[in-house]
Amino acid sequence: MSQATNRKMSPVSVAQVAIDDGFWSQRIETNRTKTIPHEYKQCKETGRIDAFDLAWKPGDEPVPHYFWDSDVAKWIEAASYSLATHPDPELDKLLDEVIEKIAGAQQPDGYLNVYFTVVEPEKRWKNLGMWHELYCAGHLMEAAVAHYEATGKRRLLDVMCRYADYIASVFGSNPGQRYGAPGHEEIELALVKLYRVTGDRKYLELSRFFVDQRGQNPSVFQRELEYLSEEDSRINRYFFERNGFDTSYCQDHLPVREQSEAVGHAVRAAYLYSGMADVAVETGDEELLRACRRLWDNVVNKKMYVTGGIGSSRLNEGFTEEYDLPNRDAYAETCAAIGLIFWAQRMLHIDADARYADVMERALYNGALSGVSIDGEKFFYVNPLASNGDHHRQEWFGCACCPPNIARLIASLGSYIYSESPSDVYIHLYISGQAELNTAGTRVKISQQSGYPWNGDIEVKIEPAEAAEFGLNLRIPGWCRKATLAVNDVEMDNASIVRSGYARIYRRWQPGDTVRLNLDMPVERVAAHPNVVENIGRVALSRGPVIFCLEEADNPVPLERIVLPRDAKLTAVFDEELLGGVVKIKGEALLIDDADWGDELYRFGSVTMRPYSFTAIPYYAWDHRMPGQMRVWIRSL
Amino acid sequence: MSQATNRKMSPVSVAQVAIDDGFWSQRIETNRTKTIPHEYKQCKETGRIDAFDLAWKPGDEPVPHYFWDSDVAKWIEAASYSLATHPDPELDKLLDEVIEKIAGAQQPDGYLNVYFTVVEPEKRWKNLGMWHELYCAGHLMEAAVAHYEATGKRRLLDVMCRYADYIASVFGSNPGQRYGAPGHEEIELALVKLYRVTGDRKYLELSRFFVDQRGQNPSVFQRELEYLSEEDSRINRYFFERNGFDTSYCQDHLPVREQSEAVGHAVRAAYLYSGMADVAVETGDEELLRACRRLWDNVVNKKMYVTGGIGSSRLNEGFTEEYDLPNRDAYAETCAAIGLIFWAQRMLHIDADARYADVMERALYNGALSGVSIDGEKFFYVNPLASNGDHHRQEWFGCACCPPNIARLIASLGSYIYSESPSDVYIHLYISGQAELNTAGTRVKISQQSGYPWNGDIEVKIEPAEAAEFGLNLRIPGWCRKATLAVNDVEMDNASIVRSGYARIYRRWQPGDTVRLNLDMPVERVAAHPNVVENIGRVALSRGPVIFCLEEADNPVPLERIVLPRDAKLTAVFDEELLGGVVKIKGEALLIDDADWGDELYRFGSVTMRPYSFTAIPYYAWDHRMPGQMRVWIRSL
Repeated sequence: MSQATNRKMSPVSVAQVAIDDGFWSQRIETNRTKTIPHEYKQCKETGRIDAFDLAWKPGDEPVPHYFWDSDVAKWIEAASYSLATHPDPELDKLLDEVIEKIAGAQQPDGYLNVYFTVVEPEKRWKNLGMWHELYCAGHLMEAAVAHYEATGKRRLLDVMCRYADYIASVFGSNPGQRYGAPGHEEIELALVKLYRVTGDRKYLELSRFFVDQRGQNPSVFQRELEYLSEEDSRINRYFFERNGFDTSYCQDHLPVREQSEAVGHAVRAAYLYSGMADVAVETGDEELLRACRRLWDNVVNKKMYVTGGIGSSRLNEGFTEEYDLPNRDAYAETCAAIGLIFWAQRMLHIDADARYADVMERALYNGALSGVSIDGEKFFYVNPLASNGDHHRQEWFGCACCPPNIARLIASLGSYIYSESPSDVYIHLYISGQAELNTAGTRVKISQQSGYPWNGDIEVKIEPAEAAEFGLNLRIPGWCRKATLAVNDVEMDNASIVRSGYARIYRRWQPGDTVRLNLDMPVERVAAHPNVVENIGRVALSRGPVIFCLEEADNPVPLERIVLPRDAKLTAVFDEELLGGVVKIKGEALLIDDADWGDELYRFGSVTMRPYSFTAIPYYAWDHRMPGQMRVWIRSL
Repeated sequence: MSQATNRKMSPVSVAQVAIDDGFWSQRIETNRTKTIPHEYKQCKETGRIDAFDLAWKPGDEPVPHYFWDSDVAKWIEAASYSLATHPDPELDKLLDEVIEKIAGAQQPDGYLNVYFTVVEPEKRWKNLGMWHELYCAGHLMEAAVAHYEATGKRRLLDVMCRYADYIASVFGSNPGQRYGAPGHEEIELALVKLYRVTGDRKYLELSRFFVDQRGQNPSVFQRELEYLSEEDSRINRYFFERNGFDTSYCQDHLPVREQSEAVGHAVRAAYLYSGMADVAVETGDEELLRACRRLWDNVVNKKMYVTGGIGSSRLNEGFTEEYDLPNRDAYAETCAAIGLIFWAQRMLHIDADARYADVMERALYNGALSGVSIDGEKFFYVNPLASNGDHHRQEWFGCACCPPNIARLIASLGSYIYSESPSDVYIHLYISGQAELNTAGTRVKISQQSGYPWNGDIEVKIEPAEAAEFGLNLRIPGWCRKATLAVNDVEMDNASIVRSGYARIYRRWQPGDTVRLNLDMPVERVAAHPNVVENIGRVALSRGPVIFCLEEADNPVPLERIVLPRDAKLTAVFDEELLGGVVKIKGEALLIDDADWGDELYRFGSVTMRPYSFTAIPYYAWDHRMPGQMRVWIRSL
C-alpha cells in the first residue's frame, strides 16, 4: 500500500462511514434497491453482461459496442460500494458471477475487451483516439479495486492487474514498446487506484506515461490517422478536423503541464484532470499540480454552470468559450458533473481548501443528482438549466455512461464526507451518520446529526477511543454568510480559526465532546458574472447548497414572463409531500400580462405586470411531474 | 388601358411626382448616380448583361444562372423609373442597348430566357418549382412596363407581350395547354401590370390562372417530381420534403383562397399576395380579397419585425411560427420588406385604410432602407435586429435579387406618396415636393414641405387648375398620438374628420389653399407582444416612422449590459454631420457593471449598475462605421 506524501489529507473508505440521513438515506436505499438492479437488468437485457461470454459471431445482433465493457464495470463498482456498507448475499453472488464472466473473457496474454476480442480482433490498439479500449480498461480497474476493497475478494483485481501488466508491456517508452494515450481518458486515475491498492509502482508509471503522452507533437492521434482507413477514422476526423487538425476535443492540443484552459469533451477533461492530480500527488510533481490548479480556476471561474454542470456544448459534449453558458441548450452531461466531483475531491485532499469542497457539494446536490430520478430508474444524460417541456429522463441510453456513473457516486457517497490526516480530521459534507476515522494515533468515532441540506443546524459528536489532541476541521461552506460554532456549548470565535474555508478546532478531544455548528441558510439570489450574456437581467435562487428552479407544474404560466423584483419576499417552506420531501421557495413576483393586448404586435409604452406568487423547487427534483417548462435563471428587475 | 373598378383609389405614376426632400432627395440622387451605375457594372462584369447575346458555349465560365435575367430586368426597371423623373441621355441610350440585347435573345416562338436557351434548352418549363423561368419573365414584364411608361418606347414592351402571349399559349386550362405555376411567384403581379398598360385581358386571365393553380391537390410541384431526375429535383426535394411532402415553402399548401396564415419563403409570399390583390381588384374577386386581408393581418400582427422586416428564418428564408421573431438570427431579407411595401400599397388602394400605409412606411424607413448603404454601393441581403459585429453590407451577391430591388423601390418612391380618385386625393407619405394629380375632373397641383421624418411639421399647398370640390385625405400615422391640422390657419377638429387613419378635408379648394399638419413626434418606447419571447424585458426606441438602434460605434460597451429604466429621459437631437444627417436619440440609461466582480462566476445579491449615457441612431443607418455590436431591442426595467 502506498501513502501519498503530497496531499494534506487522505480520503476515507466507503466502509468507514455509515450514513443515516434524512436526505440521503432514502436516495442510497433507492440506489441499492432500484437503480443498481435496474441497471443490471438493462446491462443484461441489452447483451452487455453476456457479451463477456465471447459467444458473439458475425451476423449476431446486437453487435457488442466497444464501450460496453465500461458500463458493466461501472455497475460492478456501484454494486461493490453498496456491498461495502450494506451486506447483500444475493448481490454478492451476482457480482461473483459477472466477475467470473469477465475473468473468462481475458485472453491468454492478459488482454480483456469484448469488442476487440470477438468483433474486430485484428483492430486491437489500432484506434486509441476513438475506440475506448483503454477507457474500458480503466473502468474495469476501478471496478476491481472497489470490489476488492468491499469484499476482500481478489478475483477481479488479479484479472485487472494481469491486464494492466499486459498494457504496461505494450505501452511505454522502452525499446519495443509503443507510444499511445487514450482518446477518452480514465485509465490514468484508475491506474493510480491500482497502484494504491497493490503498491506496484509500475501502474503509477504507466499512468504518468499516458498523462505525458498527451499534447505531443506530432499528436499520438495524428500518427494514428496515417494508417487508419477512411472508415475506421471517420469519427476521429469528425472530431479532430473541425478547424484544421485539432485534438483539443480530447485535451491533446498541448502537453498537459502547459495547459491552462479547459477544452474539449468535458467528461474526458474531468477524468484527465483527476488523473493528473493523482499522478502529481503520488510523484510530487509540482508542475503538474500547478496545471491542475490553473485548469480548476478556469473551469470554476469561467465555464461552470451554477448547478456544477460543465461542458456547455452539445457539439463536442464539452467546453467552449469562457462565459458561454447557454441555459436551454446546455449540455452539462451528468458524467461531467460527476467527473468534476472526482476532481474536486482530489484537489481538496491536496490543498485542504474548502473552495474545492464547495464545488464538490454544488455539483453533488444539483447537476449530478439531477441525473437520476427520485425513483432511481430514470436518468438524464443532458442537464439543461431551462426547458420548454421537451427534455425528460430516460430509462437507459445506447451510450449508457451516465446511469452507472451516478449509481457509483451515490453508492460511494460516504467516502466524500470526511477525510483524515495524522493530525486532523475533516468534515466536508454535512450528512448525518457515523464515521470511524484515524488520527493522532487513535481511532475517532464521529457522529453528525442535521437536517441538511434543508437546514444548517449541525451537531457533531466526537468519540475518540481515548482522549487525544487533534484538529477537527469543519467546512464553512462558501454559500454561508454567517456561521456560529460552539464546542460543548462554548461559542467559538470563527474569525480566528477559519482558514481556507475550514474552522479548525485543535484541542484535546474527550469522548462525548459535542460541537454545534449553525450555518445560516436564507434564500439567496444568485447573480452570474455579466459576461454570461444569457443570464444578464436574471437571478437564480439558492438556499444552502441547493439551486432552485421554476417548473410549470407549480407555475402554469409562460415562465419567461415571471419577473422577480429586487425586494421580492422569498420564503422557504419544507413540504414533506412534495417530490420526496423538499424545501420549496415561495415568492411574490410579477407576471408580464397580455390581457391588455389586442391583436397588435407592437405598442408604445411598457408591458403591464401583475402580482404573481411563484413556487420554486430544487433543481435536482425537476421533471418528475407533468412535462413542462423549467427555468433556473429567472428574469429579475 | 384598364381602370380598376374595385379599389378606392389609384396610384399615380412616378412621372407625376417631383421629390424635393431633405431626407430623400439625396438618397434618390445617390440611387441614380451611384447605385444604378454600380449595379449595371456588376451585371456587366458578372456576365449577366452579355449573357443575352446567347454566345455561351459549354465549357465557358461563368455559366449563366437561371435567375440572372431577373437581375438585369430589375436594373432596367430601376433605371427606367429614374429616367422618368430625371432625363439622362446616356442612361437612356444604355437602356436601349441592353433592351436590344434582350430583344435579340427572344426565340422565334417568343420564349425568352438565357439559361434555358443556351445552357439547358431541353429543360424549358421542366421545373417550374425551382428554376425561376416564370419569375424571370415577370421581372422582364415589370421592366418593360416601367420602360414604356418612362420613355414611351415600346421595344421591350412588345418583346414581353410576345413572350407573355407565348406563355399564355403554353399554360392554361384549355385543351393542349398545361397546368403549372411558378415556384417563385412574381409573374402574377407583372401580368396585371401588363394587362393594365395594354388592356389585353388575356394577361389578367393568365395571372388568375397562375394564382389559382397554387395549392391544388396533387400539387403542380408534386407532379413535376414524377418526371424530374434525381439531380434536377434535388433542390425541390430539399425544400418540399422536410416533413413529408409539403410545398408551403412556395405557398402551395392550400388553394390561395383558403389561406389564412403566411407561410414559406417571404419574398415569394409577398409577391404572391401582391398578385392576388391585383387579380382580386381587377376581377372583383371578393373571396380572393378576403384571403389577402386575412394573410395581411397574420403577417402584420404575428410575423413582422418592428422594422417591417418579414420572414424570420434563414432555413426557408421565410415565415415560421407566430411570434417567432429572433433578433440576431433574423433573416428579414431586404426583398421581403420591399415585397411587403408592394403588397401594402395594393391593399391601401383597395381599402383606403391607413393601417396599410403605416406598414408601408415602417418597412420603407427601416427594414427596406437598411438594405442599401448611404453611399449607395453596398447592400444587405439579411437585416438582423441585433449583431455582434459580424454582419456587413456587401457590394454584390451571387444571388443578387436585393440590390436592384432596393434601387427600383427608391427610383419609384414618388409613386408611393399620393393617390387619386374621382372625388379625392390622398397623401400617404410626407415627402417634400410637388405632384400633379387628377380629381374632380380637374388637375390639382399639390406641394408639400416638411422636415419629415425628423420632424412632423408639414405644410401642404393645394393648387387646383381651377377651384374644385374634392376630398383631400391626409394620413394621420399610426405612430402619432397627437396631430393638429389647420386649413388656411383655421384649426380643424380631427375627431370628426379622421376615418381609417385619414383626415379627409372635403371642401371647395381654391388655388393657394394651405393645410398645415403637425404630427407630434416624441421619442417612443415600443414594446412587443409578450408572446415574442426574445423581446420580453426589452423595448425598442422609435420616433416618427423611424426605428432606432444602439451601435457599438456610439456605445463602446457590451450592448447587452445597457438597461433602460422606465423613466429614462430620452432626447432627440439632429446631428447634421452624422451618417448623412440623422436625428439621434440620447438617453440616460444604466450599465451593468463588472468592476466590482473578481474572478468569481457567481455571487449572491444583484449586479450593480452605473449611469450610462447612450446614443441611438436610426436602424437604417447602422453598419456604416466601425464593425461592432448593434441592438434594436434594448434591455429595459
